Amino acid sequence: MKLAIDGMGGDHAPKAIVEGVLLALEDFPNIEVQLYGHQQQLQPFLKEHDRLTVIHCEEVVEGEDDPARAVRRKKDSSMAKMLEAVEEGRADACLSAGNTGALMAGGLFKIGRIEGVSRPALATTLPTIDGKGFLMLDLGANSDAKPENIVQYAIMGNIYAQKVRGIEKPRVGLLNIGTEEKKGNELTKAVFGQLKETDLNFIGNVEARDLLNNVADVVVTDGFTGNMVLKSIEGTAGAIMSMLKDAFMASSKTKISALLMKNELKNLKGKLDYSEHGGAALFGLQAPVVKAHGSSNARAIYSAIRQASIMVEHDVVDVIKTTISPN
Amino acid sequence: MKLAIDGMGGDHAPKAIVEGVLLALEDFPNIEVQLYGHQQQLQPFLKEHDRLTVIHCEEVVEGEDDPARAVRRKKDSSMAKMLEAVEEGRADACLSAGNTGALMAGGLFKIGRIEGVSRPALATTLPTIDGKGFLMLDLGANSDAKPENIVQYAIMGNIYAQKVRGIEKPRVGLLNIGTEEKKGNELTKAVFGQLKETDLNFIGNVEARDLLNNVADVVVTDGFTGNMVLKSIEGTAGAIMSMLKDAFMASSKTKISALLMKNELKNLKGKLDYSEHGGAALFGLQAPVVKAHGSSNARAIYSAIRQASIMVEHDVVDVIKTTISPN
Repeated sequence: MKLAIDGMGGDHAPKAIVEGVLLALEDFPNIEVQLYGHQQQLQPFLKEHDRLTVIHCEEVVEGEDDPARAVRRKKDSSMAKMLEAVEEGRADACLSAGNTGALMAGGLFKIGRIEGVSRPALATTLPTIDGKGFLMLDLGANSDAKPENIVQYAIMGNIYAQKVRGIEKPRVGLLNIGTEEKKGNELTKAVFGQLKETDLNFIGNVEARDLLNNVADVVVTDGFTGNMVLKSIEGTAGAIMSMLKDAFMASSKTKISALLMKNELKNLKGKLDYSEHGGAALFGLQAPVVKAHGSSNARAIYSAIRQASIMVEHDVVDVIKTTISPN
Repeated sequence: MKLAIDGMGGDHAPKAIVEGVLLALEDFPNIEVQLYGHQQQLQPFLKEHDRLTVIHCEEVVEGEDDPARAVRRKKDSSMAKMLEAVEEGRADACLSAGNTGALMAGGLFKIGRIEGVSRPALATTLPTIDGKGFLMLDLGANSDAKPENIVQYAIMGNIYAQKVRGIEKPRVGLLNIGTEEKKGNELTKAVFGQLKETDLNFIGNVEARDLLNNVADVVVTDGFTGNMVLKSIEGTAGAIMSMLKDAFMASSKTKISALLMKNELKNLKGKLDYSEHGGAALFGLQAPVVKAHGSSNARAIYSAIRQASIMVEHDVVDVIKTTISPN
């Protein structure tokens, strides 16, 4: 399969991107990579590889660029060219760690929605204490959602969990402020009623405080709430890890303690590490579009490439098409 | 001042409540406590105190009771009687660790809204890394909110931060998915415009991931989002602390490590401990109504009593009245 990759997006580009690509090429013999970016800037990190093609692009979409217009205006940017490769059938999927909004708008504009999907959704796998993780969507592709949008998120998330994660009957939960059916705002009450009517394995409302305890395989919510909850989890984990680091550095006694705990702390950090879980994917477009975390290191890029390749391999997009499309 | 306290609400009632009351009576010479509850059940934990009166009540509002009707139906419950004491002017403020919904509905029904306040809001102080904390509201008094409701939350939160926390010009932030003015859903965009027009020290949008880094003194949001974010923070902190505990118990080596870190870990836990921060308060009612955490221990009840007494002492309700009321 052919993957188009934006070499210039993200805080550690192009180094982390090129290194991640090289790692992935080594481990996944079935992928061919088209790497889009500024030749001179990519060069220092590149190695020759028979399944790697570099395509020079003059421009770069920056974090500050207006999401709605970035890809249209910067026609020769690595992001625009990467999306174009998918649009024109020269690549099966694409991946960027750059401007999320620009990638979403550009994906919608260049690659287009699956017929019948009214709103694409941004989804990611979040860690749980037991290491299994769960899929959450929408994480912010649409700030406002109608009940029927969220039902489609559930259908798409269900397919992903089945195909990519191999869960036969994924437990689908609705993120809400209480577990009882009547809890919530007008939106969640309407969604609850509609999800009950589907043939999904809908397990009802799930609460934010239980998310990390593996209460569901797929958790759906509107993009505003999803983004809030994602960032609350990330922010809290980051804050506690930073407090913990300070605690371990407090004195020579605590430094010895840190040494004794070295493996366990590494293990704990690994469980919370987004870089093992791939990126976020835009569901509902005509091809997989993967958004790696802006602060991705080479390992995170590697995981995101693995995720994109699995989505292609398991025909996630085609299954969404046949499930959702009217005909 | 006179405080009416529900002796029967919460997971550790009546023991934790009675013990918290006795601690508070010792430290705060200006309070008189009316303790409502089942005499026989309170008895084992009670001590004679000249500023403590026990009022026997036959009934208890349970966690499963329908919030909207609990207080009306259980007329002789400790919660109903406590609210009645405030309603009839026999107490200046009240406090319960019981059914949140019932307390909110009962408070509205018995004590009533301040004229001009369209929706009361539930507010609490959350910890930050630097130990200062911030006030967040609404945490779920109303699942759906209009822009003007959130502006009132900001005005009430601002008064609390000034009066209770002694911050001259509290930084008021709007919880949103990005810091730029145009970010967010329809609701936050409308609120942003209205908050700019107030004379509050409105610092714009704040992101959930920065909450624990002391980005604002008062953070406003709708009750659905507030509840989600609160529970995400609590859930993540709880999950990480439990993972950390497991890590420290993994082997004899890590147990030694835990011993060496004892003080620092206690300190870390203390920073994240809700029991030092008091309870949640319902803003916008004719008297302070404080909701202590359901899992409150004696220390948490003590802190919540302190909070209620400070709200009375600093006339928080009167200042909200004169600020918001039309005349």
